[in-house]
Amino acid sequence: MKFIATKENLLFGVSAVQKAVSTKNTLQILTCIKLEIQDDKLYFSATDLEIGIQCNVPVEVIEEGAIVVPAKYFFEIVRKLPDSLITIETVNENEIVIKYENSQLNLKTLATEDFPKLPDVQGEYQLSISAAELKQMIKQIVFACSVDERRPLFTGVLCEVEKNNLRMISTDTHRLALKEGKIEKGSAKGHSFIIPAKILSELARLIQNDEEICYLSLTKNLATFSIDNIIVVCRLLEGQFPNYRQVIPTKYNLKIKAKTKHLTEAVERISLFSVNNNSNTVKIKIENNLLTISSQSELGQGYEQVYIESDGEPVEIAFNYRYLLDVFRVLDDEFLTIEFTGSLSPGIIRPVDNDKFLYLILPVRS
Amino acid sequence: MKFIATKENLLFGVSAVQKAVSTKNTLQILTCIKLEIQDDKLYFSATDLEIGIQCNVPVEVIEEGAIVVPAKYFFEIVRKLPDSLITIETVNENEIVIKYENSQLNLKTLATEDFPKLPDVQGEYQLSISAAELKQMIKQIVFACSVDERRPLFTGVLCEVEKNNLRMISTDTHRLALKEGKIEKGSAKGHSFIIPAKILSELARLIQNDEEICYLSLTKNLATFSIDNIIVVCRLLEGQFPNYRQVIPTKYNLKIKAKTKHLTEAVERISLFSVNNNSNTVKIKIENNLLTISSQSELGQGYEQVYIESDGEPVEIAFNYRYLLDVFRVLDDEFLTIEFTGSLSPGIIRPVDNDKFLYLILPVRS
Repeated sequence: MKFIATKENLLFGVSAVQKAVSTKNTLQILTCIKLEIQDDKLYFSATDLEIGIQCNVPVEVIEEGAIVVPAKYFFEIVRKLPDSLITIETVNENEIVIKYENSQLNLKTLATEDFPKLPDVQGEYQLSISAAELKQMIKQIVFACSVDERRPLFTGVLCEVEKNNLRMISTDTHRLALKEGKIEKGSAKGHSFIIPAKILSELARLIQNDEEICYLSLTKNLATFSIDNIIVVCRLLEGQFPNYRQVIPTKYNLKIKAKTKHLTEAVERISLFSVNNNSNTVKIKIENNLLTISSQSELGQGYEQVYIESDGEPVEIAFNYRYLLDVFRVLDDEFLTIEFTGSLSPGIIRPVDNDKFLYLILPVRS
Repeated sequence: MKFIATKENLLFGVSAVQKAVSTKNTLQILTCIKLEIQDDKLYFSATDLEIGIQCNVPVEVIEEGAIVVPAKYFFEIVRKLPDSLITIETVNENEIVIKYENSQLNLKTLATEDFPKLPDVQGEYQLSISAAELKQMIKQIVFACSVDERRPLFTGVLCEVEKNNLRMISTDTHRLALKEGKIEKGSAKGHSFIIPAKILSELARLIQNDEEICYLSLTKNLATFSIDNIIVVCRLLEGQFPNYRQVIPTKYNLKIKAKTKHLTEAVERISLFSVNNNSNTVKIKIENNLLTISSQSELGQGYEQVYIESDGEPVEIAFNYRYLLDVFRVLDDEFLTIEFTGSLSPGIIRPVDNDKFLYLILPVRS
């Protein structure tokens, strides 16, 4: 194998596949990246057997071939290379040489035949969605997933395809986020599947250009996302997601409208007294057009008052402040609404003038 | 006590004294900040008994007094306050109230009489130096200090006052940095003292305005630095600093001149192979106008060639790459020189056209 590449293209490739490199040391080959020349392009691949990422960049091919290099060191080398043309060439079956300017680095390589082949998925279900829309959906959904690996289903995002809609739902059983987006083309109607949240987060990171289209292909067990020159393959989570529809209240006794920024800052300050109290609790009291947030701990106590628009009965309720801040931080909208049914019923947070997002948060007993 | 302050001034004060707050939990009062009204100003003080910092800001005084608050929580509160006027008022002997807009926070306080008094130093030796020059000196000196508390002397910087010069020297016994600066006024001629490196680093951080003058007052055991509205007090390190003059070579067999940036980047890349070898070693070979840096480990090997100006005999020598990068990163000069006396003798690195800085680095046997 021999090719000439720009530093920029090499860096793009190694960075794109980085998150699929195994960080565990159980199998050395999974801590590596495979580089392969095919059709005038250099393909980077990495997989930890949970996620696989492949990416290609243009290079000047002198001789075809493939190599497997330790990901960590190859990334460090590429990151520090000068901004010039880089020649990479096989010296023998377990060594490459990286040449630039007046210098050269010889790096040990591993056997290419040991590197796992990424599954070539041509799923029966296929759909496409704007990359920008998908990125925004992922941002507003993944934060509400559980990180507790003992309940793996809740570390994933339920995706439902209905008419031209892709609906994503996440929950850690204390709160639930739901977001809808528009499918451009699709043959997956009526289908539902569960994708690990960390794969979606990585996908969002890989979307650099909002103009792109993301193609999703599904088999019974696997999902493949293609965006421009990058492919992400992952295993779907198996199991029955709970019926989320029955927990979302269909009516409310009080609806308020508030400035997202005002509520966020007030909760941030008052929560200083919640960090040390029992369950990260802040109390919320709504009377007429005044929302009072308060908290106390052995350090002291505090309250903040925020002016709101309100319609309905007064309420006193308590929430985990982290679950409030989590959603405030992903809302780009200037105003939000919260619907209440009582002190012991969930609150429903929505952006104003946007029915595509909903966040349900369970109250805590204070 | 009652006063009205801007958020900006409160934040300046708590930030300035932060590094003197104890992070150990042995004595609760040392994890606190004292706030005191004196002469229309609010004084912030903190000390962990090794370093004491005091700072004052203008406030609107309504009633004099003093309080002691938990540093961590007070800092968090101040950081998150809105950009408006803040009223702070004593409620009773162990509680204050912080009021802003429509909100208020009540914070528990501690007894002011338990807070250690910062020593009031009127030293017999006094000198002043430009804050900008002092900051630059500290940057180029402290990195070569030891961090090994078992040899406390080397965690300090030797300061020697001679004529109108302040000379700072640091060493961890593997390398030595020496920097000279100009004293504006001084009565400390012929005096030498050792200041803990971490105090100097903190002092450099506190110098925001390069136009300022730093006043230093010394007693036998204590140093006090005053810069504008900030005072830093610390204990001097006791002991006999080794005679550094005798280790600095007075002649050389080879002197080279190289571009600082080129050498830095070459060492950064080649050192990737040094991280896993015996002693972080890179080899340097100089012949005519070519400097070759090389290294090897079980991952592979590499070399880089850098064009230099050179005058003298060829040399092959090996250094710990970290000690090279450390000094390259604090040199602001485009070119540097290195003087060699042989493979087993120290190298001397200096900026070109600047005789105020010198860095000695011991070779390693390769």
